[in-house]
Amino acid sequence: MNVDNVHYRSIWINSDGWSVDIIDQTRLPHVFTINNLQTLQDASSAIKEMLVRGAPLIGATAAYGYYLALRQDPSDTGMDNAYQQLFATRPTAVNLRWALDRMQARVSPLKAADRALAAFTEAGEIADQDVVSNQSIGQHGLELIREITAHKKPGDPVNILTHCNAGWLATVDWGTATAPIYMAHDAGIAVHVWVDETRPRNQGASLTAWELGHHGVPHSLIVDNAGGHLMQHGLVDLCLVGSDRTTRNGDVCNKIGTYLKALAAKHNQVPFYVCLPSSTIDWTIGNGISEVPIEQRDTNEVAKIVGKLDDGEIAAVNIAPEKTNIVNYAFDITPAELVTGLITERAIVTADEAGLASLSSEAQ
Amino acid sequence: MNVDNVHYRSIWINSDGWSVDIIDQTRLPHVFTINNLQTLQDASSAIKEMLVRGAPLIGATAAYGYYLALRQDPSDTGMDNAYQQLFATRPTAVNLRWALDRMQARVSPLKAADRALAAFTEAGEIADQDVVSNQSIGQHGLELIREITAHKKPGDPVNILTHCNAGWLATVDWGTATAPIYMAHDAGIAVHVWVDETRPRNQGASLTAWELGHHGVPHSLIVDNAGGHLMQHGLVDLCLVGSDRTTRNGDVCNKIGTYLKALAAKHNQVPFYVCLPSSTIDWTIGNGISEVPIEQRDTNEVAKIVGKLDDGEIAAVNIAPEKTNIVNYAFDITPAELVTGLITERAIVTADEAGLASLSSEAQ
Repeated sequence: MNVDNVHYRSIWINSDGWSVDIIDQTRLPHVFTINNLQTLQDASSAIKEMLVRGAPLIGATAAYGYYLALRQDPSDTGMDNAYQQLFATRPTAVNLRWALDRMQARVSPLKAADRALAAFTEAGEIADQDVVSNQSIGQHGLELIREITAHKKPGDPVNILTHCNAGWLATVDWGTATAPIYMAHDAGIAVHVWVDETRPRNQGASLTAWELGHHGVPHSLIVDNAGGHLMQHGLVDLCLVGSDRTTRNGDVCNKIGTYLKALAAKHNQVPFYVCLPSSTIDWTIGNGISEVPIEQRDTNEVAKIVGKLDDGEIAAVNIAPEKTNIVNYAFDITPAELVTGLITERAIVTADEAGLASLSSEAQ
Repeated sequence: MNVDNVHYRSIWINSDGWSVDIIDQTRLPHVFTINNLQTLQDASSAIKEMLVRGAPLIGATAAYGYYLALRQDPSDTGMDNAYQQLFATRPTAVNLRWALDRMQARVSPLKAADRALAAFTEAGEIADQDVVSNQSIGQHGLELIREITAHKKPGDPVNILTHCNAGWLATVDWGTATAPIYMAHDAGIAVHVWVDETRPRNQGASLTAWELGHHGVPHSLIVDNAGGHLMQHGLVDLCLVGSDRTTRNGDVCNKIGTYLKALAAKHNQVPFYVCLPSSTIDWTIGNGISEVPIEQRDTNEVAKIVGKLDDGEIAAVNIAPEKTNIVNYAFDITPAELVTGLITERAIVTADEAGLASLSSEAQ
């Protein structure tokens, strides 16, 4: 989408024709920096240090990282090493594995000399398909938003709550949860987005508010605690969130705190939709609560908050008492019963085994 | 409770015998500072700028502020002026009004020359009664915790989740939600407290974690988003929160985000208790959602997070993009249906009209 009237994707081929550019998302919203990836190590670090994040963008970055690895070492050993190193960067995102499996399947039958170019092409296709996929999610979600406008007073905006960043910065373009929002806004429908700040990493404040602002979509930043109050008072028409992994039962693994918003939506009859490409469905898992491992991350994410000082410097402040014990779970599971529907690139389906099975022959 | 092995209350008479000392809670957990109040203006500012906060401590501070005002001007005009100025400091806390009404009723029949001393005595009684009241809340809550230990493996701690700071710093001593915890800990029962950081002002991180740490109670700081996940995985045995105002129906107004935790507790069959002195019950209001005005506070509370830089300096970092719109609701309503019980100084009662009416003849 747009940054200062220039269209960007979140990952693209540098003008040198072979290396890969990304936006360093750890420096947003204060500084817009482009980083150049040239090696497997560059790509692994970019995922691990969360310069890139969001399940679809992690998949695309892993694909490009695999390609960069094969430029250096296209042997079977090089290929295996690339797979292992990239797979180890983040434990939860299922389409990290999906992208790597797809790259390996495409490349491994080839002669070593042909692998890098094939990987380059395949990574590009993964990126392009993500864009097309999100456009389809956007079209399906746009219809939902149109239906809601029919019940609003003319001119009153459709109020949409979102959690974390399932925006274009989390994908290659458009975003998942934001695709319907961008399409509605571009179609002239009045929308207003409640943006959860999304502690501990504040991706809502630093990424979602930033990207909506640069595209001109009206929005308000709120703390994660506020959504229940807003729903209780009729100030939310629709919740749209993304997903890092969705089980074949329809249980949704997403950023910690999603579950609490889904509970509030259910309690106040607010429709709660999850936007996801079907590549993030994990057909091997049924029950999300008992079967999805939840990543625990560095406790400094909780203790130290990064922001901009009055003098413009970027710094971290420690908010906790010294030596306080901290626990930092990164994701939670929203049980399928709380999910009104899943908006995928193929269709909107119910969050249950039948709904998901209707999407794909992969469900066998 | 204890700070570095010295017992403190949160408000007390200075060794000069007449002025009032408080702890500047805006500087915790990093700096422990005592502020001296000598005038009505000092006391009003301390409440308004949140050097003191928490419904019971606001009440006690208002009472002492009223006393300080009468030292300066014990006339009817002075009395009215003190009432108005103190009442305007915070719009939501019902026992601000309760304390001022009590002071006025005690003092107004007296000759002007006798008012300051009577006010001094009355404010002291309000403070002492708060301590006794919290001890009673603690005793009632302690019995609940004992019952839970009966169903735990020996040595496994009782895991208690709390939101915001309803600790001794929010009251004169003991706290409301923390009183049962301190009593259980002091009685040798193994407890572990999940402390919500409580954005936007982080009173959980800066106050609750600080006071539990100084008293030696095991605890873990978590982001506000984490509680649902913990309850889903059986990691919470009991939720204990405070209340700024409870309606005669049992609807609970408390720090924004309390409602979301109550929803998660209900969904996972975790008992959810609200600890409150009966002075915070608002008998004039039935339905909390439609009738309790919710304070909107400065948006800088959301945009700017105060903490300690690596060099030890206290500073605020801005986490939001420039010019982003922000909305900052301070409280929410937890409907009575989500509340397992109300722990008051008189008894544990159900959160409904019958339960509350059983507490007091004030319910007429």
